[in-house]
Amino acid sequence: MNSVKECELEYARDLDQRDPLAHFRDKFVNGDQELIYLDGNSLGRLPRNTNERLKQVIEKEWGERLIRSWNENWFAAPERIGGKIAELLGAKQSEVIIADSTSVNLYKLGLAAINKQSTRTKVITDNINFPSDIYILQGIIKLADRDCSLEIIESEDGIHGPQQQIIDAIDEETAFVCLTHTAFKSSYTYDIELITRKAHEMGAMVLWDLSHSVGAVPVDLQKANVDLAVGCTYKYLNGGPGAPAFLYVREDLQEELSNPVSGWMGQKNLFEFGLNYESEKGIRRFLTGTPPILSLCAIEPGLDLIREAGMMRIRQKSVELSEYLIKLWQHYLEPLGFRLNSPLEIDNRGPHISLGHDCAHQIDLALIQEKNVLPDFRAPDNIRLGIPPLYTSFEDVYKAVRAFEQVVREERFVKYKLGSSIVT
Amino acid sequence: MNSVKECELEYARDLDQRDPLAHFRDKFVNGDQELIYLDGNSLGRLPRNTNERLKQVIEKEWGERLIRSWNENWFAAPERIGGKIAELLGAKQSEVIIADSTSVNLYKLGLAAINKQSTRTKVITDNINFPSDIYILQGIIKLADRDCSLEIIESEDGIHGPQQQIIDAIDEETAFVCLTHTAFKSSYTYDIELITRKAHEMGAMVLWDLSHSVGAVPVDLQKANVDLAVGCTYKYLNGGPGAPAFLYVREDLQEELSNPVSGWMGQKNLFEFGLNYESEKGIRRFLTGTPPILSLCAIEPGLDLIREAGMMRIRQKSVELSEYLIKLWQHYLEPLGFRLNSPLEIDNRGPHISLGHDCAHQIDLALIQEKNVLPDFRAPDNIRLGIPPLYTSFEDVYKAVRAFEQVVREERFVKYKLGSSIVT
Repeated sequence: MNSVKECELEYARDLDQRDPLAHFRDKFVNGDQELIYLDGNSLGRLPRNTNERLKQVIEKEWGERLIRSWNENWFAAPERIGGKIAELLGAKQSEVIIADSTSVNLYKLGLAAINKQSTRTKVITDNINFPSDIYILQGIIKLADRDCSLEIIESEDGIHGPQQQIIDAIDEETAFVCLTHTAFKSSYTYDIELITRKAHEMGAMVLWDLSHSVGAVPVDLQKANVDLAVGCTYKYLNGGPGAPAFLYVREDLQEELSNPVSGWMGQKNLFEFGLNYESEKGIRRFLTGTPPILSLCAIEPGLDLIREAGMMRIRQKSVELSEYLIKLWQHYLEPLGFRLNSPLEIDNRGPHISLGHDCAHQIDLALIQEKNVLPDFRAPDNIRLGIPPLYTSFEDVYKAVRAFEQVVREERFVKYKLGSSIVT
Repeated sequence: MNSVKECELEYARDLDQRDPLAHFRDKFVNGDQELIYLDGNSLGRLPRNTNERLKQVIEKEWGERLIRSWNENWFAAPERIGGKIAELLGAKQSEVIIADSTSVNLYKLGLAAINKQSTRTKVITDNINFPSDIYILQGIIKLADRDCSLEIIESEDGIHGPQQQIIDAIDEETAFVCLTHTAFKSSYTYDIELITRKAHEMGAMVLWDLSHSVGAVPVDLQKANVDLAVGCTYKYLNGGPGAPAFLYVREDLQEELSNPVSGWMGQKNLFEFGLNYESEKGIRRFLTGTPPILSLCAIEPGLDLIREAGMMRIRQKSVELSEYLIKLWQHYLEPLGFRLNSPLEIDNRGPHISLGHDCAHQIDLALIQEKNVLPDFRAPDNIRLGIPPLYTSFEDVYKAVRAFEQVVREERFVKYKLGSSIVT
């Protein structure tokens, strides 16, 4: 049992006092100080510096410098920003670039991988993967020049990834394994190194989706010798709504893989306007079209905040926040029918926490409407609590849990009808 | 011969006085009143209203409303903005949507078309098409489940599109014809209706790239019964650098075509998170990933200006501007070795004008460095003059031509070394 003291507001405030990252909270725009925002795993907050940077991009670079800004700034931005993301991933700067959406990047790299693995017929994923990744893989196997199949390995409890079953399933027929590092729903987090090692032993490749871990969970792609990865910039990286995604291709693979969506931004000497597609060298060959500059440039200032805080300190606080949340769940919420839909053990858990409840959707609506608490709902019974370390306080977590408690204890959720909730 | 009077500054000013669209110039940010900007065909200017709208998107919708803005505004934006573009194209609102880049959209629709035309083996394009389109087509034919080939029909003079040769080449083997309506270099403009009719007679489909005509040349997709189209929003639509593109699929084809890049934004009931991809009904099925919201929302205010001005008035002024420019070219520039690299006849000419010169690249650099005139250079010998009707005055055209003349007459270009010029 937890001591009562640990479950009081005063204790949360003490934790905030001692938090070495507490000052980062003020680096984000926060017009509504009363809002408890628990959806930064879906859309990160707006960094103040991003607001400033965007004024410059819009008014100065577009408004005044116009087309000249391509040479002066924009053309190099996908590599420059990608290089900063590489730092967070233990990758070389030349291995990461910003391009398109996560789904498009997954398509490009997945199709490139299946084309390279020309005698293999199996792609492995799991059923707790983000559905878009599964849809993309379903599309890819149809386009292979041979009969290929997608093996979707099932989680036993819907919370834990079927890590051992995946390792057992990787065989000499496996073209590549494609998994999301931290699961979007449960926050279960795979051991990248372990799975990658088994894949390589069997001659298979790996393609990791880092969307729900990048910027919150340390990753070392180089140490694990990962082949391919993609990820999202608008969650823990705070790059803004729908900001373009990143892709990683290990250096020695770059010349061996072809981008199937072969547009001019990946062309060698693109301004020579030759009529035959010839891949650019290096990571730029995985570009396709002209990047959306406003959304692209919005990524950089948030990324600089992550680099300033440092991945080790971020993970440290992330662990403390989530352990604290679980402690409060046990004390206040478990007795009210809330289930922990995330792994209890910290080594397999990413930055967010999911709570299950039979009336989860109604509770979510009541929290938003009546308590100014903003988590998100994931069907069928899941409320996700995103608690990004850079701007979430222990007091936020405390107040959120007490709001959850009140909504159920006072039966405030009962009147809410179920509608659709659009959150990403 | 032109009368001397028509080639004097006073005449240009008279034309501006009588221009019914002159007042639109002040609806765009213009910090440097002395700059003659001739590259709006590559990157349109910043509308003042866009600057305001972006402040709202960034500070209010992202900064304050956060994830709630998906429901409140963003989720519907690709269709809402697409519907406004549809008005300019003579299409139904339900036939156009904003997604990805032009190259990615061309890939999606081209691959969908070749998959549908399952017994046909030929794709037709021309050698004056934008190279990215050709690269994408080269990628697509590799992915077909049968041997397919790309026939690149050559322009005889590099200026005029080989319209009759294309019509003659369309046969019962042709899966689809993919052309850019207005050529990026010469401004040659095809007869959409004529080519589409021949394609349909032979059972082939058409995929038009409208990047260099949308917002400047009236298009009637419905009248021509066009199957598929894509286009860019950052040229005459003034949507901002790299703003996401649009795609058009004729209504009766939407259910027949599959999006090969099958991501969650095109999924039916996406928030049910089913594990099997099932296409959404209608135009949304051609979406893939989460759209870049800042760049997406930047499109709408510029589009509203185009709608306010009206396509007929825009084309009228566009014709007048380009005829005036050609008149000045004949008087001032032809004697100095400038060639007209665009069609002389107005019916086959789009909104921009290309001038050729043996020292074109050096002249381009001198204009930028010494004259504050900003056209763009296209290898090997081409200077493009973009003269978008909404913010280009006749005086701009006059001053630009005189600057071209001075740079050559005074041999100011000689000292410029050739480097690379990054413009899109």
